[in-house]
Formats: sequence, structure tokens, C-alpha cells
Amino acid sequence: MTLVPGNSLLTETPEEGRELAIAIARKTIGAIQPDADTRHVLRPGYATNADSLTMAAHVVAIEFATIAAANNYWRT
Amino acid sequence: MTLVPGNSLLTETPEEGRELAIAIARKTIGAIQPDADTRHVLRPGYATNADSLTMAAHVVAIEFATIAAANNYWRT
Amino acid sequence: MTLVPGNSLLTETPEEGRELAIAIARKTIGAIQPDADTRHVLRPGYATNADSLTMAAHVVAIEFATIAAANNYWRT
Amino acid sequence: MTLVPGNSLLTETPEEGRELAIAIARKTIGAIQPDADTRHVLRPGYATNADSLTMAAHVVAIEFATIAAANNYWRT
Amino acid sequence: MTLVPGNSLLTETPEEGRELAIAIARKTIGAIQPDADTRHVLRPGYATNADSLTMAAHVVAIEFATIAAANNYWRT
Amino acid sequence: MTLVPGNSLLTETPEEGRELAIAIARKTIGAIQPDADTRHVLRPGYATNADSLTMAAHVVAIEFATIAAANNYWRT
Repeated sequence: MTLVPGNSLLTETPEEGRELAIAIARKTIGAIQPDADTRHVLRPGYATNADSLTMAAHVVAIEFATIAAANNYWRT
Repeated sequence: MTLVPGNSLLTETPEEGRELAIAIARKTIGAIQPDADTRHVLRPGYATNADSLTMAAHVVAIEFATIAAANNYWRT
Repeated sequence: MTLVPGNSLLTETPEEGRELAIAIARKTIGAIQPDADTRHVLRPGYATNADSLTMAAHVVAIEFATIAAANNYWRT
Repeated sequence: MTLVPGNSLLTETPEEGRELAIAIARKTIGAIQPDADTRHVLRPGYATNADSLTMAAHVVAIEFATIAAANNYWRT
Repeated sequence: MTLVPGNSLLTETPEEGRELAIAIARKTIGAIQPDADTRHVLRPGYATNADSLTMAAHVVAIEFATIAAANNYWRT
Repeated sequence: MTLVPGNSLLTETPEEGRELAIAIARKTIGAIQPDADTRHVLRPGYATNADSLTMAAHVVAIEFATIAAANNYWRT
């Protein structure tokens, strides 16, 4: 199983870093609940609940903080 | 889809950094729930629930922490 | 709209840094729910619920962490 | 109102840093809900709920992280 | 009891770092609830609840942040 | 009351650092709810609830992040 796509935290741009953050968060969910059918069943309830969306965005924010630090915030 | 408006974490001022934090958080919600109509339906319930607002502010706080570090806290 | 009062994270003292953390958190709530009447309606329920208060204190703690780092923890 | 007792994040020891973290978290609750009677009413329900206690410990953990960094982790 | 497999935060790759983050999070649950039968009973309910999965992914994200910092983000 | 056993964040190994993180988290709960009987009553409900366990593991993760930084991640 791949948990970190590309096996690197380094990206060219913040945009790609953000995409990686979302991907990593999703891979973690896949690792904890490997059954794709179950994840598919859960999606509608979760994607139509504001607090569930906020909780998911929270996780992405934390993953992104790590990726941004890894890339020295793409300062140059 | 744009996840990081301007594709940079660098801003001129803390105020602009804060605006970026809010924008990034919203873009993430849009990435997880791409249907604008659904997001529109969810907004009234969420925007009139104190805990939901606090949860959203929490995410903004984390995004801002990353942006502030990227900008060396606008110290100079 | 002002999101960061004074447009700076720098304060003279930890006490002022803490006040700024609270102010920034409140400004974020105001940005998400701009209607002051709605915020006013929500306050009693939220301010008399222990978990809601803890959640709010949590956000302040994160904002303060950023402000404290910006000020090099007021070490000197 | 005092939000940071002693108006400093520096302490002699980790133990004192931990006490300060708890004190700062409590002061924040006091700032958000200034009425001592209300806080007193809320305490029994909150102090006998495991999740409420965990949430409170979470906030202390974050305040302590800031204080520990301020003190260079009391390494010497 | 082992809480940190290998007793080190250093890994060769981000992928291994991510695996370690998941392992450490699970070991903590095992430390708090040492009874394997109880953990087994809890798993179906938790693994089929979207918010529970998000909460778990949140913990993994925080463990990974620590591991990534320990490894200087596997930059070289 | 002791909040930080040994009054130091420095440990020989990550494993000991993890044990300290758990101990510190527990001491905080003890500080907020000093009555051991109450804590004893709460334990079964909390230890058999997956989300409660995840919330507790979350706090341990944050305490560990601080301890790991204090120990320079036990890199050498």
C-alpha cells in the first residue's frame, strides 16, 4: 500500500503541496478502513455534513503544515 | 481547481495572510465537497451553530500558523 | 474588515499577545458569520456550555502559539 | 484582567511550566465566560465527563507546547 | 510494552515514516485500552463511522508531523 | 502535586519519551479532576468508546511532539 504518493514530501509549488496533503489524508483513511465499498457507503453522509467537512479540512491543514515546512514554505 | 490562491504562501501583511488562511480553508472544503449547491444548503445550519463556527475558526487558526511561519511572522 | 487588529503579530508583552489571540479568534468568527445579531443570539448557549468554552479556548491556544513564536516568546 | 499570570512564559522548571499552562487555559475560559457563578455551575458536569476532561487536557497540552518552546525545553 | 516500534523516530523514507505514525498511534490506543478483545469489539463501529475515521486520521497526521521533523523531512 | 514526573522533558529513548507523554497527559486529568474515585468511575465508559480513545491518543500525540522536540528527536 502507498501512504505517501511519490514517497516524498517535496513538491514544486504550494498548490501541489496542497494536493499532496489531501492525497495523504485520504490514503490514511484507506489504511484504517481498507474496504473501498465501506468508504463509498460513508461518503454521502460525511460530504453533506458541515462539521464532518470541517473535521476533514482540519486534517488536511495539519498535513499541509508538515509538507509546507518540508518545502521551506516554497519561499524562493 | 485552485487550492492555494496565487500559488504562494507569501503575503505582504498579517491581514492578507489571514485572508489567505480563510481562502485556503474554504478551497479545501470545496475540494472535498465540489458541489456548490450542497455547500450552499449546508451553510445556514453551520453558520448559526456556535460549535460549528468554532470548529471552522480552529481550521483557519492552523492554516494561519503555517502562513505566518512562511512569512517569518512579518517581523520586519 | 479587519482580521488582525493592528495588522501585526508583534506585541510588547505576553499579556498583550494573549489579548491579540482572543481578538483574532473573534475576528475570524465574525468573518465566517458576519451577522452580529446571529452571533449575539448564539452567545448564551455557547457561553454556558463547558465543552463549547473548551473548544473556544483551544482556538485561542493555537492563535497564541503563533503569536508567541512571532515574538520569540518575549524572551528578552 | 490578567490572562498570563506573571506576564511571562518563562519558568524555572517543567513543573512550573505545566502549572502555567493550566493557569493560562483557565484564564482564557474566564475571559470568554467572565461570570464566575456560571463557571461554577458548569464545573460538575464537565469534571465528571471523560471526554470533557480529555478536551481540557488537550488545551493544556497545546499551551504547554508553547511554554516549553519558550523555555527551550528546560534543556540545561 | 512497546510504544515506539524500533525505539526510534528515524526512517528511511516518508512512506516508512507514515507507517510508523500509524503504528505509534495504534500502540497508544493499546496502552490506554490494553484489552485486545475490547479493542476488537470497538473496531466495526469505529471503522464504519466517517467522523471516527477522520478523528483517527487526525491523530496519525500529528504523529507524522513529529516523525517528519525528526527526519528533517527526508529532504536529501 | 506532580504534573511532570521527574520534572524534566528529557528521556533516554523515544520509548521513554512516549511513556512520559502518557504520564503527563494522565497527570493533567488528575489536576483537573483530583478525585480519584470519580476518575475510576469514568474509566469504563471512556475505555470502551472508540472516539474517547482516539481523543485520548490525540492528546498523547501532542504531548509527545513537545517531548520529542525537547530531545532533538533522539537523533544521535
